[in-house]
Amino acid sequence: MPPAAMTERPTSLTGIKPTNEPHLGNYLGAIRPALGLSATYDTFYFIADYHALTMVRDREAMRKSVYDVAATWLACGLDPSATTFFRQSDVPEVFELAWVLSCMVATGQLERGHSYKDALAKGEAPNAGIFNYPVLMAADIVLYDTNVVPVGKDQKQHLELTRDMATRFNHLFGAGEELLVVPEPLIGEAQLVPGLDGHKMSKSRGNGIVLFWPQKKLRKTIMKIVTGSEPLEAPKEPAGTLFELTRLLTPHVADEMAERLRAGGYGWGHAKQDFFEALDAELAPMRERYEALRADEPALDAMLAEGAERARVRARQTMTRVRHAIGMR
Amino acid sequence: MPPAAMTERPTSLTGIKPTNEPHLGNYLGAIRPALGLSATYDTFYFIADYHALTMVRDREAMRKSVYDVAATWLACGLDPSATTFFRQSDVPEVFELAWVLSCMVATGQLERGHSYKDALAKGEAPNAGIFNYPVLMAADIVLYDTNVVPVGKDQKQHLELTRDMATRFNHLFGAGEELLVVPEPLIGEAQLVPGLDGHKMSKSRGNGIVLFWPQKKLRKTIMKIVTGSEPLEAPKEPAGTLFELTRLLTPHVADEMAERLRAGGYGWGHAKQDFFEALDAELAPMRERYEALRADEPALDAMLAEGAERARVRARQTMTRVRHAIGMR
Repeated sequence: MPPAAMTERPTSLTGIKPTNEPHLGNYLGAIRPALGLSATYDTFYFIADYHALTMVRDREAMRKSVYDVAATWLACGLDPSATTFFRQSDVPEVFELAWVLSCMVATGQLERGHSYKDALAKGEAPNAGIFNYPVLMAADIVLYDTNVVPVGKDQKQHLELTRDMATRFNHLFGAGEELLVVPEPLIGEAQLVPGLDGHKMSKSRGNGIVLFWPQKKLRKTIMKIVTGSEPLEAPKEPAGTLFELTRLLTPHVADEMAERLRAGGYGWGHAKQDFFEALDAELAPMRERYEALRADEPALDAMLAEGAERARVRARQTMTRVRHAIGMR
Repeated sequence: MPPAAMTERPTSLTGIKPTNEPHLGNYLGAIRPALGLSATYDTFYFIADYHALTMVRDREAMRKSVYDVAATWLACGLDPSATTFFRQSDVPEVFELAWVLSCMVATGQLERGHSYKDALAKGEAPNAGIFNYPVLMAADIVLYDTNVVPVGKDQKQHLELTRDMATRFNHLFGAGEELLVVPEPLIGEAQLVPGLDGHKMSKSRGNGIVLFWPQKKLRKTIMKIVTGSEPLEAPKEPAGTLFELTRLLTPHVADEMAERLRAGGYGWGHAKQDFFEALDAELAPMRERYEALRADEPALDAMLAEGAERARVRARQTMTRVRHAIGMR
């Protein structure tokens, strides 16, 4: 069977790193743009649990983070009936394809891979999973006849490797035919969301605002954001972490806030309260959905399994083509 | 489910490289000793087609060599009902396990692997399949709760890596329990069989006597072996390629041949004819079986598929243990 027909919409694939408690940076920088793809593409989203195995060596941590991100993406609006949403580990075909693709790439190319070089630079003794990460990523992508992959600038190199492997496979085994779809990058502008300390919001810095913290904790955290210390009456410059977060997360209140700050008679405490209220109004219904979804792990399992069944239909078609081409039964 | 109970016989695993037209060196050095294991062990034999993909980039060559070795081993006495005989590619669980194990080994360890270092030394740009070969080999082994692996001295290092990966997995995820069986090497004396030119018989040297050549070609090849040129009457030293092959392959005629050579009045031509007749008597029934087996590829497929079904039962049990331990569903 040839690659998935293009009479339908082109396919996009988004890999989701399982992370405990996604934060507002993840929401704005990754989740929201990725969900926007479904307007244009036949969207595939997968939770990359087997990629996480290169680092996570704890059964419960692995399970928890998979459920956390699954519930998060669903709560943020991922529609499992309109997209294909699944766990990487539920489509074992990807590992066979990864082996095939590993025979299509020189070790020298992998030695130049970002994540591997970063690990070496930090003086670590990286495991072969980290070295082979771009190969599994390539298999993730070509398994579903993916046409476009949204990538940040730091992932562009890995996608180039994917294109190399697919091209090499087609050259060696396809006699010119495109047995494996060679994917294109969809390079988005990375939305930089500042964390509580003004630096980029990141889990490792511990400066994040967790997306679905309870209302009370969300308010408390926002109230603690460091701002200027001008007196209430003074006109203030609409800048700094708090205003930046307002502008990015609740743009509909940012203009008015800027005006009021500039006018004076409006304190940073007021601004914090206004930002909190606007943000909470947006997050509250999602948080409620999140809590309901997160409380029912068997339902999440069933939803992901259903997605995996759909994903495997395409995976099996690809593997049938691949196995035939290389002379496996 | 715990590893396969040891109430039964321990398990041995033999990997078979798919090669076109196995020669007498393969027969004596690999096939016959491996088949001898079934007296003591619950034997698993697999055709390592996906290992061959690191080198073979031709669909027909891959298919042909798999059928060639399958028919060869069966003709040599492998009993598919008493052993588990299968294609590596028919048990895709091995690739998922290979990914898991790749996260258990430092790249530095793989960089010291024989085959990878040999490829580098030859000035090649080895593909990642060659680099990862010891990881897939480790997965092949532990997937079946293998207790012993017959290895030549050159494979001892790779088996050490297997033991390392399994031990590391048990340590990280098993809390002391042996989730993966740590295999022992079974180091055999490598039987050195000389080829037609006196050097070790090997496919790459082109000095081999193919196991199942037709009788006529076998005779012609043996007749061409270079021997001494003493006159018929002269006493001769029982040595050299021809006598060595007689001693190794048809030991029951070697003593008498030695006596006659020493006595004189017995020429190298006689010796060649006697060796040919003894060898052909041993090979003829096997050759006949080989030809019948090789002519029926669907029957070979069915036999190997049946073996794979049995192998997958154990593979699935192992993967259930592994997936549970690492937190996959």
